[in-house]
Amino acid sequence: MRYKLTISYDGTNYNGFQSQPKGKTIAGEINKALTKIHKKEIKVTASGRTDSKVHALGQVVHFDSFIDIPENRFLKAINNLLPLDIRALEIKRVPADFHARYDARKKTYLYIISPTYDVFLRNYQTYFKYPLDLELMTQATKKFIGTHDFAGFSSYTKSKQTTKTIYNADLIQKDDKIIITFTGDGFLKYMVRRMVGTIISIATKKKPLTVIEEIFATRDSSLCGKTASPNGLYLQAVFY
Amino acid sequence: MRYKLTISYDGTNYNGFQSQPKGKTIAGEINKALTKIHKKEIKVTASGRTDSKVHALGQVVHFDSFIDIPENRFLKAINNLLPLDIRALEIKRVPADFHARYDARKKTYLYIISPTYDVFLRNYQTYFKYPLDLELMTQATKKFIGTHDFAGFSSYTKSKQTTKTIYNADLIQKDDKIIITFTGDGFLKYMVRRMVGTIISIATKKKPLTVIEEIFATRDSSLCGKTASPNGLYLQAVFY
Repeated sequence: MRYKLTISYDGTNYNGFQSQPKGKTIAGEINKALTKIHKKEIKVTASGRTDSKVHALGQVVHFDSFIDIPENRFLKAINNLLPLDIRALEIKRVPADFHARYDARKKTYLYIISPTYDVFLRNYQTYFKYPLDLELMTQATKKFIGTHDFAGFSSYTKSKQTTKTIYNADLIQKDDKIIITFTGDGFLKYMVRRMVGTIISIATKKKPLTVIEEIFATRDSSLCGKTASPNGLYLQAVFY
Repeated sequence: MRYKLTISYDGTNYNGFQSQPKGKTIAGEINKALTKIHKKEIKVTASGRTDSKVHALGQVVHFDSFIDIPENRFLKAINNLLPLDIRALEIKRVPADFHARYDARKKTYLYIISPTYDVFLRNYQTYFKYPLDLELMTQATKKFIGTHDFAGFSSYTKSKQTTKTIYNADLIQKDDKIIITFTGDGFLKYMVRRMVGTIISIATKKKPLTVIEEIFATRDSSLCGKTASPNGLYLQAVFY
């Protein structure tokens, strides 16, 4: 039986989602918990990886299991074995051909920027102390909507499909924070962090608004703003 | 010259404020930063200690220095050398007889309890999943107001002055969280955590409201509720 598991995690103390040569990973902890429950090795397949220190509000993985107990009991058993910075939010039996990565239609990422350094939120938002032009910042955010070649916004490898569609890009203010969300059909490595870094470089007037189109056209990542730090980034949801 | 330094810290990764046989301490990090600036050993004196994992929004320390630069520059220099989970909020020159501990008139502690487990706030609030009777909980909180012998609410040692005055005790709800604040002329070791633990045991109806007066009268700490965990506790402010 195949299960779809939705998880939330605080990425602060992990070396990313998956298979790093050293350090703890989120997948490693989930595999460990599931392997313990099944008394045989279980490996999850995720919708995609998240980088070191990136968080998730709703990452999705799938795995195969012979366990046939009510879903709420299965969820509890998993949470009892997971560390407290990784929580299983939901488990659901899915058809045997469900695939967490291939079937993902859309993903939403959000990024939190704060002008105030908060000792308690230092791992959960990106502190940016220089003035940001919110009007320009919103315009820059909206420029990403549509189908574009994002090679310049990622650590590009030739073999990868770098054309992606961003369905929605929003910038909202909440208290003194700025929250940027992107919903798209797929995201390349470092893509959101380079998009946000470029948006910031436009909002501080270091780069013109037109740089985004220029990066789409030239695929030249050296034109991007400084890659935004991982601690402000959250994989919010995966849609199937 | 004597300086009064107000600091905020995330206690999660520290073995308390001061002089533990092993592990990093908050005082240790501040002393290290000041020693580096002065190129001679500097040791701060705090308003009081906080336990391992307890946070501070406004702890106060004093130290003596030969440095005579504008306060904002001094503050910046200190923050440049402190780890990112300890921040100096304010520095002020004070009379040479100012003493962070002896001159403290009042302190406010706050304690945050949440009925929802939040992976990102797990170190910053206490998760409590059982129902709490808020009416009883408020009554219990208010019982602490006044001058009482708090020996039973602390890890009592005979030599200590255990009579303390609580000027104010409040319980408020914010979103789904419960925030309890106490302002008093002094707090003994574990005192707030045992007060909160006892309030919780009353709010879950494990203990009667009268247990608080009974602990004042008998000084018997075995009557207290389970000592509340340190991660929900903040030293909010010290008043001089």
